[in-house]
Amino acid sequence: MPELEDIRRRNLGNLLRHVHLDGALSRTELAERTGLNRSTIMGLIAELTAAGLVREELPVGTGRAGRPSLVVRPETGRVYVLAFDVAVDRLLAARVGLGGTVLERLEAVRPRAGADLDTVVGALAGFGKRLHATAPPGTVCAGIGASYCGMIRPGDGMVRYGPDMGWVDQAFGAELGRRLGLGLPVAVGNEAHLGARAEQLRGAGMGAQNLVYLHGDAGVGGGIIVRGELLDGEAGYGCEVGHMVVNPYDGRPCMCGSRGCLEAEVGERALLDAAGRPPSQSGWSAVRAVVDAADRGEEAAQHALAVVGDWLGIGVANIINLFNPGVVIFGGMLREVYLGSADHVRRRIADHVLAVSRERVRLRISGLADDATLIGAAELAFAELLRNPLETLPAPTASTRS
Amino acid sequence: MPELEDIRRRNLGNLLRHVHLDGALSRTELAERTGLNRSTIMGLIAELTAAGLVREELPVGTGRAGRPSLVVRPETGRVYVLAFDVAVDRLLAARVGLGGTVLERLEAVRPRAGADLDTVVGALAGFGKRLHATAPPGTVCAGIGASYCGMIRPGDGMVRYGPDMGWVDQAFGAELGRRLGLGLPVAVGNEAHLGARAEQLRGAGMGAQNLVYLHGDAGVGGGIIVRGELLDGEAGYGCEVGHMVVNPYDGRPCMCGSRGCLEAEVGERALLDAAGRPPSQSGWSAVRAVVDAADRGEEAAQHALAVVGDWLGIGVANIINLFNPGVVIFGGMLREVYLGSADHVRRRIADHVLAVSRERVRLRISGLADDATLIGAAELAFAELLRNPLETLPAPTASTRS
Repeated sequence: MPELEDIRRRNLGNLLRHVHLDGALSRTELAERTGLNRSTIMGLIAELTAAGLVREELPVGTGRAGRPSLVVRPETGRVYVLAFDVAVDRLLAARVGLGGTVLERLEAVRPRAGADLDTVVGALAGFGKRLHATAPPGTVCAGIGASYCGMIRPGDGMVRYGPDMGWVDQAFGAELGRRLGLGLPVAVGNEAHLGARAEQLRGAGMGAQNLVYLHGDAGVGGGIIVRGELLDGEAGYGCEVGHMVVNPYDGRPCMCGSRGCLEAEVGERALLDAAGRPPSQSGWSAVRAVVDAADRGEEAAQHALAVVGDWLGIGVANIINLFNPGVVIFGGMLREVYLGSADHVRRRIADHVLAVSRERVRLRISGLADDATLIGAAELAFAELLRNPLETLPAPTASTRS
Repeated sequence: MPELEDIRRRNLGNLLRHVHLDGALSRTELAERTGLNRSTIMGLIAELTAAGLVREELPVGTGRAGRPSLVVRPETGRVYVLAFDVAVDRLLAARVGLGGTVLERLEAVRPRAGADLDTVVGALAGFGKRLHATAPPGTVCAGIGASYCGMIRPGDGMVRYGPDMGWVDQAFGAELGRRLGLGLPVAVGNEAHLGARAEQLRGAGMGAQNLVYLHGDAGVGGGIIVRGELLDGEAGYGCEVGHMVVNPYDGRPCMCGSRGCLEAEVGERALLDAAGRPPSQSGWSAVRAVVDAADRGEEAAQHALAVVGDWLGIGVANIINLFNPGVVIFGGMLREVYLGSADHVRRRIADHVLAVSRERVRLRISGLADDATLIGAAELAFAELLRNPLETLPAPTASTRS
């Protein structure tokens, strides 16, 4: 009966996903969420427990009288993934436990000057090997995910276009997998796509079915969730919000070769230029400094946020008209920019969005601070385990398997 | 076993849908498309045949030797739907047979001056009653659908916003149903949403999973299909492409109260003004006249198409960057405008769309000429029958039921 086996596998994955995302759920809650009966759930939990993926324990401080019921928790210590994040200014790597806990984290500043594939992959592979080597004995790496600031071909993690490094068709995912040498493939996604997913799973858009995530790095990326799924389009390259033209005839030049793209008007350089900062300043710290200066009353900084907020508002207005989303989330550098220019953004939305289209939309800042993209990469890495928990799990590296 | 009954119902609907959309399919083709085995298919076809929904017959001129196998065709003569289309300049109604054949059609010019709900519904109900009364005895009306040039609340067909008539929250669907008095609800959709669906099912985007349909009436509507489904967003109001701001600081005023919206820059009035046509001219015929004049070499008309084509190209570029679609379809009045300005549109796409994002996109004109929205309304009306063929079907109005 292969079909029954499929159902069992799906149920195991489903149960583990709920526990992984929620952190601690009673059997009753699991029954409600999965629609499975309690005896089926008991059996599945026993299997997941035997595999070292979950444990049952007494909840902490329920504050209720009587015997509290057990809760099922993810076993953070046994199974982990490696998550990488290639952003414009930094390289990040982390070991992330089941349940989404960042167990260990390494970070390096990345020089803006063009970096070749070998350099980037070499640095990340070094991080990955350190994280793997320092993992406690008996723990298991269940997957590898990476976030990249460019356009990624689904399936093989090829960077089709990475504007800030000047990459075209670089086999990033395959090469990182080879250099890590763990015998696991590397799943790669665009940073804003992964940020959107992370915010939907664990952040400011938890549970949202129609969500727009705008990620500011040096430029602007987008991750758009429609009916619960990422808008990837015909070939995986949807959501390029940053290259929506908002200022066609008077626009700033964009790295993509066009003019007046949203990212040219609201990206880091646009803000810093409008605030009169010299070209030597760059990066998130410089952006934060402008927002802080505006808070303290510096006119040039306030002017810059007004200009950038206006363009950001036009971009967001267009997106709301097109997507009728439930929530728009500002992440990465755009979190600061939005906080410093929310009035301008909101005014543009009021001016340009049809009244009916904005009835339900909420504007939020990222709930995951600087880690939305990294957490998105970790979730990508966990995907296979959550689809098929028991068969995906490799043997532990040491002899402590329970 | 309610589950088996559900499966049977789904299979019946699925089979009927294939025949309805394709026109004629052999049992072998049906088996391939549905994944059902031949004996199951035979049984289901027998049920659909007994209900008068399909018939089996010899195919016309197969040109092959040997005994040709039977094909299953939709029974166009027995079951029909009523489809309505409220556009800016006209009111349309049709009786459409299973299989999508327009059996009878009524049309009236609609004056542009504001029309109230009562007037519009009265005219449509008059059409509907005539179509129903002249239907042959023994035929059955299986559903009613309507396309409307405004924002429609899903579920009850409330017009939330109909800019050209100045409608806000008018109970269009309910009122039309009441006035028709056929005991059937009226399913209402936005015209461009329905046009998109029609093009996907029967037109220039047949089978496309990621499709953008742009509908020019006086303004511009959009219907966007993502992963095979209409992008309706949080509350059904997605795809408002016409109100994407493309010209924020120098834009023409838009009916929505904003400025520089795509529809303000490429709508009928923008084209006619740019061509120096007087305000007394309007409508599709005036638009066609400009395109024809440009073909004959009139400079003012060529200039107008260049200006409008430029803005249209910017709008389409933004959409391609956002959606990575497989096909973009120009319908309604935009069919003519695109044909007259394709060079400008394509140049803008080349300038503003990331190379990777445009690798797979095709630009097409509507395959359904002026009827995309009407056919979309008919498909909406057929939806319930195709979900559950035998139980949806009401008794015939006369005594010829087979």
